[in-house]
Amino acid sequence: MVGASGYAGGDLLRIVAGHPHLELAVATGHAQAGSTIGSVHPHVRSFRDVVLAKTEPAALAGVDLVFLALPHGQSAAVAAQLPESVKVVDLGADFRLKDAAAWSRYYPGEHAGTWTYGLPELPGQRELIAAASRVASTGCYAVSTTLALAPLIAAGVADPEDVVVVAASGTTGAGRAAKQHLLASEVIGSLSPYKVGAHQHVPEIKQATGARTLSFTPVLAPMPRGILATVTARPTGDADPAEVLRAAYADEPFVHVLPPGEWPRTSATFGSNAAHLQATIDVDSGRIVVVSAIDNLGKGAAAQAVQNANLMLGLPETAGLAVDGVAP
Amino acid sequence: MVGASGYAGGDLLRIVAGHPHLELAVATGHAQAGSTIGSVHPHVRSFRDVVLAKTEPAALAGVDLVFLALPHGQSAAVAAQLPESVKVVDLGADFRLKDAAAWSRYYPGEHAGTWTYGLPELPGQRELIAAASRVASTGCYAVSTTLALAPLIAAGVADPEDVVVVAASGTTGAGRAAKQHLLASEVIGSLSPYKVGAHQHVPEIKQATGARTLSFTPVLAPMPRGILATVTARPTGDADPAEVLRAAYADEPFVHVLPPGEWPRTSATFGSNAAHLQATIDVDSGRIVVVSAIDNLGKGAAAQAVQNANLMLGLPETAGLAVDGVAP
Amino acid sequence: MVGASGYAGGDLLRIVAGHPHLELAVATGHAQAGSTIGSVHPHVRSFRDVVLAKTEPAALAGVDLVFLALPHGQSAAVAAQLPESVKVVDLGADFRLKDAAAWSRYYPGEHAGTWTYGLPELPGQRELIAAASRVASTGCYAVSTTLALAPLIAAGVADPEDVVVVAASGTTGAGRAAKQHLLASEVIGSLSPYKVGAHQHVPEIKQATGARTLSFTPVLAPMPRGILATVTARPTGDADPAEVLRAAYADEPFVHVLPPGEWPRTSATFGSNAAHLQATIDVDSGRIVVVSAIDNLGKGAAAQAVQNANLMLGLPETAGLAVDGVAP
Amino acid sequence: MVGASGYAGGDLLRIVAGHPHLELAVATGHAQAGSTIGSVHPHVRSFRDVVLAKTEPAALAGVDLVFLALPHGQSAAVAAQLPESVKVVDLGADFRLKDAAAWSRYYPGEHAGTWTYGLPELPGQRELIAAASRVASTGCYAVSTTLALAPLIAAGVADPEDVVVVAASGTTGAGRAAKQHLLASEVIGSLSPYKVGAHQHVPEIKQATGARTLSFTPVLAPMPRGILATVTARPTGDADPAEVLRAAYADEPFVHVLPPGEWPRTSATFGSNAAHLQATIDVDSGRIVVVSAIDNLGKGAAAQAVQNANLMLGLPETAGLAVDGVAP
Repeated sequence: MVGASGYAGGDLLRIVAGHPHLELAVATGHAQAGSTIGSVHPHVRSFRDVVLAKTEPAALAGVDLVFLALPHGQSAAVAAQLPESVKVVDLGADFRLKDAAAWSRYYPGEHAGTWTYGLPELPGQRELIAAASRVASTGCYAVSTTLALAPLIAAGVADPEDVVVVAASGTTGAGRAAKQHLLASEVIGSLSPYKVGAHQHVPEIKQATGARTLSFTPVLAPMPRGILATVTARPTGDADPAEVLRAAYADEPFVHVLPPGEWPRTSATFGSNAAHLQATIDVDSGRIVVVSAIDNLGKGAAAQAVQNANLMLGLPETAGLAVDGVAP
Repeated sequence: MVGASGYAGGDLLRIVAGHPHLELAVATGHAQAGSTIGSVHPHVRSFRDVVLAKTEPAALAGVDLVFLALPHGQSAAVAAQLPESVKVVDLGADFRLKDAAAWSRYYPGEHAGTWTYGLPELPGQRELIAAASRVASTGCYAVSTTLALAPLIAAGVADPEDVVVVAASGTTGAGRAAKQHLLASEVIGSLSPYKVGAHQHVPEIKQATGARTLSFTPVLAPMPRGILATVTARPTGDADPAEVLRAAYADEPFVHVLPPGEWPRTSATFGSNAAHLQATIDVDSGRIVVVSAIDNLGKGAAAQAVQNANLMLGLPETAGLAVDGVAP
Repeated sequence: MVGASGYAGGDLLRIVAGHPHLELAVATGHAQAGSTIGSVHPHVRSFRDVVLAKTEPAALAGVDLVFLALPHGQSAAVAAQLPESVKVVDLGADFRLKDAAAWSRYYPGEHAGTWTYGLPELPGQRELIAAASRVASTGCYAVSTTLALAPLIAAGVADPEDVVVVAASGTTGAGRAAKQHLLASEVIGSLSPYKVGAHQHVPEIKQATGARTLSFTPVLAPMPRGILATVTARPTGDADPAEVLRAAYADEPFVHVLPPGEWPRTSATFGSNAAHLQATIDVDSGRIVVVSAIDNLGKGAAAQAVQNANLMLGLPETAGLAVDGVAP
Repeated sequence: MVGASGYAGGDLLRIVAGHPHLELAVATGHAQAGSTIGSVHPHVRSFRDVVLAKTEPAALAGVDLVFLALPHGQSAAVAAQLPESVKVVDLGADFRLKDAAAWSRYYPGEHAGTWTYGLPELPGQRELIAAASRVASTGCYAVSTTLALAPLIAAGVADPEDVVVVAASGTTGAGRAAKQHLLASEVIGSLSPYKVGAHQHVPEIKQATGARTLSFTPVLAPMPRGILATVTARPTGDADPAEVLRAAYADEPFVHVLPPGEWPRTSATFGSNAAHLQATIDVDSGRIVVVSAIDNLGKGAAAQAVQNANLMLGLPETAGLAVDGVAP
């Protein structure tokens, strides 16, 4: 595991520790190389005495699969040094986009390429992931929006033009680097939007959902984990969007369209790989409104990455992954 | 003051205690009648030994102005018993709507009538409030949305069709009655939507903003105070929405369109009568996105009610009201 | 499982769902009988369609083991109706105390009796639990204090006179009944003590630790889970308290005395059965200071109960229990 | 005002903006010099266009009074450059201690000297402050502990030996510098102790209270503001500690001993200069237990500093200061 000192890395370590079929070969950190996992992630007692190594390809060459949990833009350099025989799941954005121009609009550096997109719940995607040796895990905002919207656009139920999404995320989505605006003093008791009008996840969401224009506004919420996405689109027919979603996910172990009248809350997905959905038609505007809840470190990052790894390694897809959240 | 035991009532008491020109004549409660204010609102030390009275018209007849801070639907009965010489500011929804049918769609009981709408920042409204003896203060969601949207529709800059709003509120907006879903255990660490697809504040927001269709989704956020509203609409021209708002509020003491690049956060309005706004054009969808932040108990309830009372009593409009939030 | 609708019940359900050897036979609720587990505990998707039954002995008679997760004082009546062949783990206070007079000082109703005390980490207790058919699981404050203090008193290192404990708990410790002082609006952003000077858990803590006089002050903290206990006592010698604790728990899977210089934080135990400890000598007063952190629903309630059940059923003691917390 | 960019500086600016007799002459920052107050403290709209100056003695020489809100150890250098005619209130620790050796045990650099101690509620201290041109404001932990304990020791009611204090503070007490352990992700949902066994505020607390040995354990709590201190001491007689405190503070405008049965909560002091106290005798141990609540930025820092400034400038002691908290 590369990049084990961040929040996604910490959750990956926790999941791997409880996974019946995975074994931790090596965990690397950058500034934290040389520290024990216990000191960097006090909650991961299972690996408390394991020392974080430096990120060196040699140390990784012998393993079956590598998780890359690095800041956006840093995965490509590491991936380039890994032999084809080593499977790789990248939690970063580097290999998600098909469109190099879209990459360049939002990220520094060149577009690194395009890997198999790691959202098994998209039609046909599960099989592609199982056959791939390189998978780009979905971003957290993209998971929450795509699960809510993609089946509706695919079914011709929602208009791909003029989709509006407002999504609020817990603070771990912003990473572990010490920044003033992420201090508890600044965040507790406050909601604040960021990157309004131009967010780097828009191209990924459009690519994954089929939306053609998208207004996406992210909000920082005073909680450590969780994304609640409110996704609205104009209907293109009379279908009940909740029923369309219910049919689309009937066999999915981790995506739950709630019973009528129950709406998602992020806490119910805390620590799990679950996504909770509900949908309705707004009586005044007639728009479709879908709300989805995930744990941004769970289905939005670490747990989803393990789900992809399970598929790539031929393991049961649900192995080591919680469907039940830790609540309250 | 009628209904002094709830959260809006508590904030009204606090503001009145520090107000240079207002004096508390009597405070009434319902279940809490007979208790001291100190035991019901431990933060209001100024009135700690004042005992809450029963709500009886006789006790109120001699005062200059009455604040009604009652649950929706309970103001009309009390108001009917007050002489015309007593000015009244109602913090409830009873007298906000012009359209009786809209009232009946969302509230039980008959429509009680329509009072002067208590949002001084709407064009011409300040003068109407100053001349009125009955004012219906604006609802908290309506304040946050109307300040963001009304000038844009009025200026022909935003299309009144297909407005989409997602607004998250702190828990005091849901009142002080003990309900399981409002327990700290349920709320902390969680975001959850409610009344999705059909919210009772939609008619008020449409009436106040001029929007013709409105998708409004409210979200409960893990914080006690604050509303962050994300308001999106299609543009009807090339005007910069931030500049339109800046011009509209240039002389307003409590509405602040932030400098370019700065976006509102709810904590900055905590405990104050301020509203913070910012706007942009979304690069992908071309939609106008306005974000507004208020304190739902401040500009959204108690402080706004005092602003209206100041106007009605011929006092300086800003008397006793904070423009600066208590942060962090 | 009896009393499945509360917070401890919800966490028990979650743990049972992921337990390799336990199977849910029946879950009962009181007011919630007839509801699905999915509607009562939205996070427990594994049992989402299971309907809560009424609490009737007949329904429980055939099972191997019953968990009682009822309000204090209600376990005895149910337990009396269960045959001896059914093993019982009680999460309530009913059967913890040896001293009937101590019970009567703090609880209404008669003392129901004394069961085997369910804290496996006490010397010799693990074997007693394994042999018992009735076990009274330890209270959450008692777990956090006892793990910190009992080995020091037993080793003659800490004076059992004049022990001072201040322990702060998350809100789930106060239960799921809707009470005004537990509303999110009241709790977020606030710390408040309660039952100062006379707390009902004092007799249990004295019985379990050997303390002879104890000042115990509980504090309600703005978080859903977790107890942080600061335990101070006068030393009776020169021993390093951290070393004494380290030796006492060297072989314990769930109790971790942290490396020197690292202090517990409650989040690191979230969702797990772990307890984290650290100790030092205060330089000014010379007092021993031990700080312990647990999840009040984990090692403080549900996970501990499962640990006891594992022992009673001859299962691996750690089966189905997390040692790693879900953090952040 | 020197050091206006931190949290105490921000609260000072807010209080000064609403103060009837104070006027802001100049505000200086360090790294933030050149920025507007609006960008550094978005909540302080009153001074939104004021630009933070560099900290240069020339700019300060003409003012009546300077507030120093700098990190501990940095006040002395600035103070040395101010003429005697300029009154100074220091919010830092530099000039609080009488004992140079105690300073050296906990702080780097030499002891700078001893100024008049800025806690007006200590007997005789109000007059000394009014006559002083240099005042060292009390530290936040010291305020909360001293108000609870000093009258009891002075009255011979509490034994000054073996005092035990556990005090939990909101995160603003740790300052605004970006540090990983203060990130919202780390703090929300967690309690953690720090500097256990040797805290730098112990000498100040002993000096101010008369305690002779003191075990002081600070805890970081998941909230931005507030200190809740639990102070225990052995009684030296039969006096009711609550009555002793009630008598001591009968005429104090900002210190409130609550009615019997009501215990302090930090939220009730939020944004104010109030301190709330309650006391009892623990039934098991016989120890005195006093709990005090303050806002660490209010009575613990900025508001207290203004209270001292009011006295030094011959203004009404309560001018510009709130006795009522902003809650919830």
